[in-house]
Amino acid sequence: MPSKRRVINDPVFGFINIPNEFIYDIIQHPYLQRLNRIRQLGVTSFVYPGAQHTRFHHSIGAMYLMNEALKNLKEKGHDISNEEYNGALAAILLHDVGHGPFSHILEHTLVKNIRHEEISLLLMHQLNEEWNGKLQTAIAIFTDTYPKHFLHQLVSGQLDVDRLDYLRRDSFFTGVNEGNIGSARIIKMMDVRNDHLVIDSKGIYSIENFLLSRRLMYWQVYLHKTAVAAEKMLINTLTRAKELATQGEKLFASPSLSYFLEKNITHADFENKGEALHHFVDLDDNDIWSALKVWASHPDKVLSLLSNGMVNRKLFKIEITAKKQRASKVEEFVKKYESKYNLSEHEARYLISHDVITTNMYSEEEESIDILYNDGSIKDISLASDMLNPELLSKKIGKYYFAYLRD
Amino acid sequence: MPSKRRVINDPVFGFINIPNEFIYDIIQHPYLQRLNRIRQLGVTSFVYPGAQHTRFHHSIGAMYLMNEALKNLKEKGHDISNEEYNGALAAILLHDVGHGPFSHILEHTLVKNIRHEEISLLLMHQLNEEWNGKLQTAIAIFTDTYPKHFLHQLVSGQLDVDRLDYLRRDSFFTGVNEGNIGSARIIKMMDVRNDHLVIDSKGIYSIENFLLSRRLMYWQVYLHKTAVAAEKMLINTLTRAKELATQGEKLFASPSLSYFLEKNITHADFENKGEALHHFVDLDDNDIWSALKVWASHPDKVLSLLSNGMVNRKLFKIEITAKKQRASKVEEFVKKYESKYNLSEHEARYLISHDVITTNMYSEEEESIDILYNDGSIKDISLASDMLNPELLSKKIGKYYFAYLRD
Amino acid sequence: MPSKRRVINDPVFGFINIPNEFIYDIIQHPYLQRLNRIRQLGVTSFVYPGAQHTRFHHSIGAMYLMNEALKNLKEKGHDISNEEYNGALAAILLHDVGHGPFSHILEHTLVKNIRHEEISLLLMHQLNEEWNGKLQTAIAIFTDTYPKHFLHQLVSGQLDVDRLDYLRRDSFFTGVNEGNIGSARIIKMMDVRNDHLVIDSKGIYSIENFLLSRRLMYWQVYLHKTAVAAEKMLINTLTRAKELATQGEKLFASPSLSYFLEKNITHADFENKGEALHHFVDLDDNDIWSALKVWASHPDKVLSLLSNGMVNRKLFKIEITAKKQRASKVEEFVKKYESKYNLSEHEARYLISHDVITTNMYSEEEESIDILYNDGSIKDISLASDMLNPELLSKKIGKYYFAYLRD
Amino acid sequence: MPSKRRVINDPVFGFINIPNEFIYDIIQHPYLQRLNRIRQLGVTSFVYPGAQHTRFHHSIGAMYLMNEALKNLKEKGHDISNEEYNGALAAILLHDVGHGPFSHILEHTLVKNIRHEEISLLLMHQLNEEWNGKLQTAIAIFTDTYPKHFLHQLVSGQLDVDRLDYLRRDSFFTGVNEGNIGSARIIKMMDVRNDHLVIDSKGIYSIENFLLSRRLMYWQVYLHKTAVAAEKMLINTLTRAKELATQGEKLFASPSLSYFLEKNITHADFENKGEALHHFVDLDDNDIWSALKVWASHPDKVLSLLSNGMVNRKLFKIEITAKKQRASKVEEFVKKYESKYNLSEHEARYLISHDVITTNMYSEEEESIDILYNDGSIKDISLASDMLNPELLSKKIGKYYFAYLRD
Repeated sequence: MPSKRRVINDPVFGFINIPNEFIYDIIQHPYLQRLNRIRQLGVTSFVYPGAQHTRFHHSIGAMYLMNEALKNLKEKGHDISNEEYNGALAAILLHDVGHGPFSHILEHTLVKNIRHEEISLLLMHQLNEEWNGKLQTAIAIFTDTYPKHFLHQLVSGQLDVDRLDYLRRDSFFTGVNEGNIGSARIIKMMDVRNDHLVIDSKGIYSIENFLLSRRLMYWQVYLHKTAVAAEKMLINTLTRAKELATQGEKLFASPSLSYFLEKNITHADFENKGEALHHFVDLDDNDIWSALKVWASHPDKVLSLLSNGMVNRKLFKIEITAKKQRASKVEEFVKKYESKYNLSEHEARYLISHDVITTNMYSEEEESIDILYNDGSIKDISLASDMLNPELLSKKIGKYYFAYLRD
Repeated sequence: MPSKRRVINDPVFGFINIPNEFIYDIIQHPYLQRLNRIRQLGVTSFVYPGAQHTRFHHSIGAMYLMNEALKNLKEKGHDISNEEYNGALAAILLHDVGHGPFSHILEHTLVKNIRHEEISLLLMHQLNEEWNGKLQTAIAIFTDTYPKHFLHQLVSGQLDVDRLDYLRRDSFFTGVNEGNIGSARIIKMMDVRNDHLVIDSKGIYSIENFLLSRRLMYWQVYLHKTAVAAEKMLINTLTRAKELATQGEKLFASPSLSYFLEKNITHADFENKGEALHHFVDLDDNDIWSALKVWASHPDKVLSLLSNGMVNRKLFKIEITAKKQRASKVEEFVKKYESKYNLSEHEARYLISHDVITTNMYSEEEESIDILYNDGSIKDISLASDMLNPELLSKKIGKYYFAYLRD
Repeated sequence: MPSKRRVINDPVFGFINIPNEFIYDIIQHPYLQRLNRIRQLGVTSFVYPGAQHTRFHHSIGAMYLMNEALKNLKEKGHDISNEEYNGALAAILLHDVGHGPFSHILEHTLVKNIRHEEISLLLMHQLNEEWNGKLQTAIAIFTDTYPKHFLHQLVSGQLDVDRLDYLRRDSFFTGVNEGNIGSARIIKMMDVRNDHLVIDSKGIYSIENFLLSRRLMYWQVYLHKTAVAAEKMLINTLTRAKELATQGEKLFASPSLSYFLEKNITHADFENKGEALHHFVDLDDNDIWSALKVWASHPDKVLSLLSNGMVNRKLFKIEITAKKQRASKVEEFVKKYESKYNLSEHEARYLISHDVITTNMYSEEEESIDILYNDGSIKDISLASDMLNPELLSKKIGKYYFAYLRD
Repeated sequence: MPSKRRVINDPVFGFINIPNEFIYDIIQHPYLQRLNRIRQLGVTSFVYPGAQHTRFHHSIGAMYLMNEALKNLKEKGHDISNEEYNGALAAILLHDVGHGPFSHILEHTLVKNIRHEEISLLLMHQLNEEWNGKLQTAIAIFTDTYPKHFLHQLVSGQLDVDRLDYLRRDSFFTGVNEGNIGSARIIKMMDVRNDHLVIDSKGIYSIENFLLSRRLMYWQVYLHKTAVAAEKMLINTLTRAKELATQGEKLFASPSLSYFLEKNITHADFENKGEALHHFVDLDDNDIWSALKVWASHPDKVLSLLSNGMVNRKLFKIEITAKKQRASKVEEFVKKYESKYNLSEHEARYLISHDVITTNMYSEEEESIDILYNDGSIKDISLASDMLNPELLSKKIGKYYFAYLRD
């Protein structure tokens, strides 16, 4: 295998070395290559045209940070065997492999009964079989059944390398520079006590900054109103398409997309190398966009209106408010669309979306960020920080949105 | 229209203002929005995973630089009317609108008898009709029939804002930082003499740097051997698909892709709002990738081998050499594939690609880069520079490649 | 005057244009040129070797941001006359002109009875006379006696361009990237209501980020323990030097430094073009460092120990704690130094420094950051933010330090 | 020693680790700390206000790159012992230790009979004695008497880490982004054949880019006309000051600067721990600036005019031309100054400077940049590159300048 391929040029972290053959084989596997065709931020590129980066690229970046974190912990004297080292790298490389295109949207429409983490795990098991158990440690770390808990925390925790990568990467590609976090400093401050990740107290300001940057990215990027509008529009589009397809209407779609449009998929369909899994790993952004473009001239008024809106950026108009919309306002819009487009009430409702959007930035239940003091004591960041409001940190913030087709 | 949309966040240039309603309407038009679904660098993301940026994003960046260049020229006392200002902005925004997905590949396979510049012009004329002549000046500037020649040079010339944007942008997203050019400095050094763009002699080092960066980007990015291998593989894939389709084989494809697969399109099909143009503006990267994924399990061995290679990154192996490959070597490979995959000779040849790749960095015929000295004299850069080799600057560099399916 | 000088190359903001002759003349004046010899962050370069940037560079950057802010406010329809525009630019350019070398250190030692803001104002008045009243508006804006209060807020307020520049610039040159703030976004979100600066509610996350970045910069940079140690050591050094000088000891120093070492300067010495002002504008970092190097071999043990520590980076060792040090510990150190270096108790105390360090990030009394909502209502950020702890935002944070000569 | 000090925050390369105690001790030594008070680019900050970075910072950066280069060569299988590794790191850290303030200016005025490389070596020998021979290998590498020649090439050669660092660093701090070179890529492409550094042929474009960036930096930064004007003015100032001092005139100066002003220093004064060396390591930028400020009001008209020009940025006006100035023009200026300032001819000539400035970017005699091809053959870059003009590459470029006091 030529040495040249062993370095990946990343505008975020510079040259990224692929540490060994085992990791290289994972990266080359079709399951990971598929992530090259799935954008990390889905419809967000409607708002930030630079945000075209893929889940593949994110996975590589997270592997780079995992490598940095493991090196740092070894230098601090923590024992990490080669098997564990590779296991952690493999686990982070594969952690997103169960994502579909527009993942959160798909989980509300075509792939309802299973979460992407479960699919990641199913795929890891399948690869593990293929590779005669070589992913055993990776799977144990991923599922938190491996004795060294801190390795799992690096893969999935309040300060995992997943978040460290995506915040920096999303900040970089959107151009929202304030979202930049000090990933290198945070990694340098990482240590382990009682098998848990802790952060040296000198790093407390970097952690505060990390939490606030994450929050800024949530509202400025991930929950940007135009991105929410696009997401809701796509949910309605796919829901309508599935409704039509299950009623026997023939819609243009790739075979794998057809499968999810026409069938109501259960959890069981995914297990035991079921056909759902087979079709799932065939899906990516291209299937959705190809279909939307054809559907834009479908005779069904609802489907064509919505698909055309997605394709030609005539997105839902959206209002985000602290209080819920009056029910009567919704009904007024329904009436208007019924008459304007000659639709049934059921159909007209597809041109509207309204609900609550919530985020909680930091959930103590999930797992805490522990700050380690010079005297050996440990405090959760929400207590250690004299700046952040501990109650608010763990409070869910809810806002209401009301989105509807533009005239 | 909400003011918030009038600013686009660009990781390369920061906030980009959309100057007025007219420009905003162009950006919102489906023709420009389509460019959001066409990657600027096509298959190059096989090598540089960050290179996912779109032709839309490039068009916006080029518009930003055009705006900077026009402001600078006005400040230097050159007369540019509002009509001309908007015309130049519109021309650059629309200059790439005729690109299809994987543009250069398509021009070798499905869309053979017309170049993307011609399609851009056809689409501009169509929009001009739609908008009652509002693009008249833009079209004149684009076609170089407008009296002020220097405006055309900003759109298309040795130092046009097209190149200034794409070199910086491609450098940024690939992470090949040495490709970075001093676009701001070059624009500050621009002036006009005798209706031609000139560069103040203080800027000569920036021009040399620009020419060399361009060269570096050519060999390091645009003609990177893996990218060439992918490009050649995709050409063979589409050629095979078209061969099968014209023979009546039913291939999965979106309606517009089917059109180009099944028909042999002539120049006339594009003119007069012909159906070719209609289908063309429906094509984007998604159609190609969707089809490739389905074709990867097509019964035709050649099509499935090639499509699978594209989808799962089993790209052609490639050798680039100063001398041409021995003919006998090619024939050995043909023989090998015939027996290995049980193919006819005609079919086996699809698994190989070999030819010459050339680039000439700077062609004096095309149009020169003129350097303006303090005494008012003007010299072409190839004479003005004491560093660059003038003969070599305009010499075509040719290399030979031999690409073939990996075992 | 050659046009080339009218652009300043800034690694932070790119090319900065000098808008006109009047501004150019201010920049060229010896008072501003002197700031080229005063580092923005004083002794902080002991910790961050990149932090060598000058108060001159900061002043230019702040002028750039003022220009951006004024342009933005004009575009939003606020009336700003040319006189006001230039006045605001001049005020920000001159706002730091009263800083001496190691400003805060000097204000604790050699220049005790006057603050740098007062000196800035004295110098502005002097320039105003020199220039026949051309700085009248600038002075009125600086002193907040100009009718348009918001112009003063841009010069000196919670969100003034002074802070916007220094946070970005200090973050850039130290390499503490997390300190990066979204200055461009904040400026875009600025508006004016009732003659007060307000921030559009869409910008609330950028403001939170700004406040937290500022806090991070305080603890990570401005109050970094090594920087504090160096600062305290220099205070003791200069205090000892002044003690010796006022006792008639001849110390090497430039004439202007001698003046401040030998005399006890009063506020009156500065007024009416007094000689203090004359000598003050002659002082810069070079006078201090030149003297320290010579003092490092002065026969006075205290002076030479301290000066040598500064010159050769044998800085005070420092402990920063939440609680005050035991008084007995201090006395132990005094005793130790007395015997070790054969010093009197009075002298030995120079080798120690201990006190409290405080910061309050956001003081509501000072002036609030007002957030403007779509419905026209306005809230202070400490109420508008659901994230930041309002009580803590305005609470002074105090820590204790104990610094002492290393063995 | 606390671990926190073992990392240096560098805005150019991020966190730089100090690899071990030995290297740490070198960095802490007064000789290296002195470089903190000597700017890398001397008077260039008159043009680029960001260019305040120090020789210390550059030395640290070069050490970082040396570390990267050595790691890379070890990974490629080249044998480098710990002793050699540390020797190379020490050699590069100390390579600039013999620089004085405004080094090239000083070598034309106060320190004429010895070059900075010789002083570096003298200081290394002195440290070696102090440290009982620990610098033996470093000195051998520095002086190219160590058996492994390629280690010397990394310290001092066409592609040494000295250049790699200063080009990137100077580009970064000046804001001349086009000067950015791909240091990481160049280091990755380094290999060793026959004890000589070679560059893999894939890196040829990076080398071309490196050579051209260097050239751009020369003309845009190092030989920027305003920087040349300032340099020539400072040479005349110091020459005049020395003339006065040797005539017995008492000039304000630190003791060490006085030493060099009053004495005519010979090479012998530097050797055997002579007093010249002792005074030399006491000199830095502060001595020069402190003196200039005082000299600006010295009764000698020539000295005060020139010093005032330096302090208040009334620099020589300069003309740079391809041909030499007419001799008569020089004489006209001399005459003018004689009468205007009432000076003798000898004195008037101090207000003028004229000569030739030359640079040769790449000298084949010095040592070549060798390109290694896949077939094992090696070619010099001037032959390997089809772009760069080989004759011109090694040609000295000479221009004439004529600089004189502004009216």
